[in-house]
Amino acid sequence: MKLRLGMIGGGHGSFIGAVHRMAASLDGLYELVAGAFSSNPDTSRSTGQHLGLAPDRVYASYQELVEQEAQRPANERVQVISIVTPNHLHFAPAKLALEHGFAVVLDKPITFSLAEAQELAAVLKASGQKLCLTHTYTGYPMLKEARHLLATGALGRVRKVYVEYPQGWLSTPEESGENKQAAWRTDPARSGIAGAMGDIGTHAFNLLEYVSGLRVTELCADINTVVPNRRLDDDGAVLLKLSDEASGVLVSTQVAAGEENNLRLRIYGEKGGLDWQQADANTLLVKWLDRPTEVRRTGASYLSATALHNSRIPPGHPEGYLEAFANLYRNFALTLLAEQGGSPAPPEAQDYPGIEEGLRGMAFIETVIASGQSEKKWTKFTL
Amino acid sequence: MKLRLGMIGGGHGSFIGAVHRMAASLDGLYELVAGAFSSNPDTSRSTGQHLGLAPDRVYASYQELVEQEAQRPANERVQVISIVTPNHLHFAPAKLALEHGFAVVLDKPITFSLAEAQELAAVLKASGQKLCLTHTYTGYPMLKEARHLLATGALGRVRKVYVEYPQGWLSTPEESGENKQAAWRTDPARSGIAGAMGDIGTHAFNLLEYVSGLRVTELCADINTVVPNRRLDDDGAVLLKLSDEASGVLVSTQVAAGEENNLRLRIYGEKGGLDWQQADANTLLVKWLDRPTEVRRTGASYLSATALHNSRIPPGHPEGYLEAFANLYRNFALTLLAEQGGSPAPPEAQDYPGIEEGLRGMAFIETVIASGQSEKKWTKFTL
Amino acid sequence: MKLRLGMIGGGHGSFIGAVHRMAASLDGLYELVAGAFSSNPDTSRSTGQHLGLAPDRVYASYQELVEQEAQRPANERVQVISIVTPNHLHFAPAKLALEHGFAVVLDKPITFSLAEAQELAAVLKASGQKLCLTHTYTGYPMLKEARHLLATGALGRVRKVYVEYPQGWLSTPEESGENKQAAWRTDPARSGIAGAMGDIGTHAFNLLEYVSGLRVTELCADINTVVPNRRLDDDGAVLLKLSDEASGVLVSTQVAAGEENNLRLRIYGEKGGLDWQQADANTLLVKWLDRPTEVRRTGASYLSATALHNSRIPPGHPEGYLEAFANLYRNFALTLLAEQGGSPAPPEAQDYPGIEEGLRGMAFIETVIASGQSEKKWTKFTL
Amino acid sequence: MKLRLGMIGGGHGSFIGAVHRMAASLDGLYELVAGAFSSNPDTSRSTGQHLGLAPDRVYASYQELVEQEAQRPANERVQVISIVTPNHLHFAPAKLALEHGFAVVLDKPITFSLAEAQELAAVLKASGQKLCLTHTYTGYPMLKEARHLLATGALGRVRKVYVEYPQGWLSTPEESGENKQAAWRTDPARSGIAGAMGDIGTHAFNLLEYVSGLRVTELCADINTVVPNRRLDDDGAVLLKLSDEASGVLVSTQVAAGEENNLRLRIYGEKGGLDWQQADANTLLVKWLDRPTEVRRTGASYLSATALHNSRIPPGHPEGYLEAFANLYRNFALTLLAEQGGSPAPPEAQDYPGIEEGLRGMAFIETVIASGQSEKKWTKFTL
Repeated sequence: MKLRLGMIGGGHGSFIGAVHRMAASLDGLYELVAGAFSSNPDTSRSTGQHLGLAPDRVYASYQELVEQEAQRPANERVQVISIVTPNHLHFAPAKLALEHGFAVVLDKPITFSLAEAQELAAVLKASGQKLCLTHTYTGYPMLKEARHLLATGALGRVRKVYVEYPQGWLSTPEESGENKQAAWRTDPARSGIAGAMGDIGTHAFNLLEYVSGLRVTELCADINTVVPNRRLDDDGAVLLKLSDEASGVLVSTQVAAGEENNLRLRIYGEKGGLDWQQADANTLLVKWLDRPTEVRRTGASYLSATALHNSRIPPGHPEGYLEAFANLYRNFALTLLAEQGGSPAPPEAQDYPGIEEGLRGMAFIETVIASGQSEKKWTKFTL
Repeated sequence: MKLRLGMIGGGHGSFIGAVHRMAASLDGLYELVAGAFSSNPDTSRSTGQHLGLAPDRVYASYQELVEQEAQRPANERVQVISIVTPNHLHFAPAKLALEHGFAVVLDKPITFSLAEAQELAAVLKASGQKLCLTHTYTGYPMLKEARHLLATGALGRVRKVYVEYPQGWLSTPEESGENKQAAWRTDPARSGIAGAMGDIGTHAFNLLEYVSGLRVTELCADINTVVPNRRLDDDGAVLLKLSDEASGVLVSTQVAAGEENNLRLRIYGEKGGLDWQQADANTLLVKWLDRPTEVRRTGASYLSATALHNSRIPPGHPEGYLEAFANLYRNFALTLLAEQGGSPAPPEAQDYPGIEEGLRGMAFIETVIASGQSEKKWTKFTL
Repeated sequence: MKLRLGMIGGGHGSFIGAVHRMAASLDGLYELVAGAFSSNPDTSRSTGQHLGLAPDRVYASYQELVEQEAQRPANERVQVISIVTPNHLHFAPAKLALEHGFAVVLDKPITFSLAEAQELAAVLKASGQKLCLTHTYTGYPMLKEARHLLATGALGRVRKVYVEYPQGWLSTPEESGENKQAAWRTDPARSGIAGAMGDIGTHAFNLLEYVSGLRVTELCADINTVVPNRRLDDDGAVLLKLSDEASGVLVSTQVAAGEENNLRLRIYGEKGGLDWQQADANTLLVKWLDRPTEVRRTGASYLSATALHNSRIPPGHPEGYLEAFANLYRNFALTLLAEQGGSPAPPEAQDYPGIEEGLRGMAFIETVIASGQSEKKWTKFTL
Repeated sequence: MKLRLGMIGGGHGSFIGAVHRMAASLDGLYELVAGAFSSNPDTSRSTGQHLGLAPDRVYASYQELVEQEAQRPANERVQVISIVTPNHLHFAPAKLALEHGFAVVLDKPITFSLAEAQELAAVLKASGQKLCLTHTYTGYPMLKEARHLLATGALGRVRKVYVEYPQGWLSTPEESGENKQAAWRTDPARSGIAGAMGDIGTHAFNLLEYVSGLRVTELCADINTVVPNRRLDDDGAVLLKLSDEASGVLVSTQVAAGEENNLRLRIYGEKGGLDWQQADANTLLVKWLDRPTEVRRTGASYLSATALHNSRIPPGHPEGYLEAFANLYRNFALTLLAEQGGSPAPPEAQDYPGIEEGLRGMAFIETVIASGQSEKKWTKFTL
């Protein structure tokens, strides 16, 4: 009953390729059967071999993978294709895969530019296929709980949102050494017009909109390149106007020396606030105006159904990043399998990021960079 | 290149069976191909179907599984059998599997009694096979780091060890309702002579010995049954004499209302101390006599090779219980695969709990229960 | 050897008056001997009586206090006058006290407007007296340590500063009820042109400049009044350009429902970062690019002399807000006593906020409110 | 309206003398007017001078202080005498002070031996005076809240109590150097029959009984001297039987290298648990069987009256050890002042440790040391 999975990108040394494979494996809902793991055929071949794939399903290019798999019998060919390449190599394989009738999992940001994203949206619509965009952090169960609390009005109207994603790993000119991650992420030709804002700012933006249910309407950005000779931004802060008269602040930096990946989201409504951070991902603090703060915990029986659906083990046994990532793959699989079975997927299965999130993410990148270059305070966010 | 895995136990509703499957899947090193998931053939069959197994490899009993798999061709039959049944059903299937030439993964405690464990040790030795005992918590990377720090003498001679495993889930008479977990874990016929001490006290004991490198030599136990009519202990505290003139305290309780599973280990040497707890599993505090406490973190570049070997993703992206569990499966697989390849497994792969830990765990159970019934202060720990 | 202290303001029900008295008492360096505790003579009298003052030293107005104390013999009259009134009543009594030869302790913000602050600076200079401005938070020992680390270059050049002061107590229209604190703090006639930015934003601003050693050069503010009908801002966020090419973000809000007073400061340099928050005031996290985070703690032997000077008890016994406040009073007293003794005060005693901090605080208020009303992104910070 | 205070002990270099003075000063309820600060008259004189006392009220011995103060006019002589000497010098001055009609504040443990404590109890009773024993930790507001929650049955019957007091400062043979604290605290002639158990174990014991309302009925101790050549215990762990069928564990050690003073108390009842630690003294975690843990915080409006009575400032501004200590002095003063005024003190003012706590503390010391030397498991706790 497993979905047959193919992968584009993710050869030896790829961080995110391995993550996708673990996330897809965890729940036994996918079986990796094909791949074009690298534009270097030797790398692709050796990766496939290492992963135990049949040699004839390890391809030298993404075109080969898509076209040859499409010709295999329906009960043998891949059903889902994961694309885990750098940003400039998202659009073309995604388009090709969709056009050949495959469901697609795509790493974020969805494409190299907003224009590409819009074209991909059209392709997707025409194809009738499904697409999952791996904004991992939305997979954390306690963020599902946070979203549920806000959606049900438990905290009243939202007034203020703070989201921050500080990293320290680009505090030095890593890209001038052998760090392949640093090299492509700071290269405008592969990453796009944004560095930190594209890489992690989009995660922060997505999380804010996903959990709060609000939309950014205007923003004011301070965008910096702190490390000399770096070619893209590595630091920024953004004032936000949000729908429903709320406001916010978004911080994203890769030069906060000593920081790991402590994404944090705080949302305050009329009656209380929410505080979540990745460093303590299984805890959601729910703060109240006039009674004690509550510590809600992954897996606890008092949680909402959506939070419990996205958790696997009893409370107190920590679930982490891979489990959050796997929640995206799992929900996507449950949706695909339900449709194969002819019934609509339940709402909690349909809860994974897709093309809408991709489009807004690209619009965020373009708006925030434009604002950074503007002398006006506020720049409208349009899509 | 995946190891073919069979499973005994773990039918629908089994907590630990699902955990074993996720742990085995995570790194793509095992493929579940056969199972006898329940003593109820229907349950076994439907579980196997749900998991997508071929019907002819879903068996009605563990004997069938072992005997029929043994008759399959070498390149098809299972290579490893995971046994995830209640304690009273560990020994017989493990013995049978070993005698038929299979490697075995066994949930803890290893058997129902020390006598069984000793007999299993003999069977294992005679079989020439390998056995992995899933003392999950030893799989956490920061406990590998802790062990490394102590083994290399960074903290001087160990003087004091505190280990505690508080749970709250048995604060009420859960076993009188529909909770199957509670039912067998409080039943002497299925669990053995100990309740909390067998279920979680053995984990605490194992962790203490594994990380410190010390051995318990004498102990003094206060063993209680707090909830009325419960048939086994649900609470206890133990004073410990340890090798090398150290001493310690072990706490294990299932009636600490409101606690989840916050296993915690603290070890103090002449120069400093270590503090780890499952609730913050990716952090190891290293305390020093005369300089600031250090916060060591999973995945950080400054960690020991053994800690890094047992981690998968960059620091700040939390790894949890399933990853720790998967480390046991992974190291066991790396050991088996190396041997299949004719070369000895590297030391970090051989770092998984086995028969020795199983024997000591059973001796712990028998000693701690005996001490609980004794009016003497100290009871010798012998094996 | 105690300094004789007089107090203006701080009658029954005043929060900050009681705080000043406790802070002044703690180290036995001041003795409260006189007061004009309220503009209501009865309140002043009963407060003085409650505090055990001699009736003839309890005055009906600040003018009486200053003028009559000045006529007492030198060995009897007050030496220091603390002014703890609302903002609009800072300037006049401070001016009068200085002109009559008294040292002054003044609550922040220093005056009602920048113009008043500038005039007070001139009065102070002409008087030859000393003034201490109670920016309490700079008194925390771990912020002394932070400042020391940055000043000595341990973290390299500072790149990024985040400071935030979230409160929740004005999430509802408290000022329409009986809350006197809320009433004057949201009243432009008593508080000045700023609400939250004046009340707590100035603390955040002061802390940032004090600890980092940098100066704000330009800023871009989003200033909001969230609670309907409130007359001053209750929320804001500010992008900052700082001297030496650094940048930062300042957040100050009083509508973060459920938050207490968790002032937090994070500063990142080329080699590492610092993280301090009032909720865990005795801890300073020092983060490094390539080695474990250090947990520095109040009172520990490895701290700088300045941090140890501002601490009283052994590590692990928490020191709090009153101790931080008392550090300002203590350092001010040590400075005054040293001068009385004819010798210059040691540097660590001279480390208390004064007129410069007051001027910059008022300039911050005026600049940040102007920026909030501007459509330009950046507004210059001049003084 | 201040109480006139005299002090015995607390000369230059005394840690606890300075703490008593700060605690007594904080609330303006005491004025230090006399002292016999050292058995060395020169030290006593220079300490008194430094503190600004009148020279004729600085005495060369405690006898002088008591006898000469007793001869002063009633409106001038001291009303309360604080005794802050090492343990062997508690009994004689306390007895003398009580017999001369003074109220007494005494540091813990109350005396050198249980026999002395019993004699002191008789003296106290005969004198009609009051005595306050400074078990500081009971002054923390969140422990008042904890006690209140248990006393009102919110958590059901108490089942399990864990209390621990780990320190690291005696990990090395400090007493062989110049550390005066270490010297007397490890000296049987000055400290009594117990080291760590007397110094900090008594605090842990007192806290357990005070907060839980239970009484220790039997105990089983493992008492160790870890550092070679030390003359008293520096480490121990104790199993406890408590009244009302509860049980517990008490840990007290001074060789937990790297630990500060993280006293921690956890109490579990049928419905939930409490968790408090000095390192985060303004937080009380209240855990529940089936709903989220609550974070109760010092100063919050939802707290019990007794918790609020023992707090001074708004929530989020931390209160620490000195404030807890000051709560003892304050409650004692409020009691004495009420009686002077002819009215009984309100219950919250009478909430300070006294002779009963002193007697039980000494019985604890004698019982725990006896148990440490016994081969029987359980030793009865009698008084």
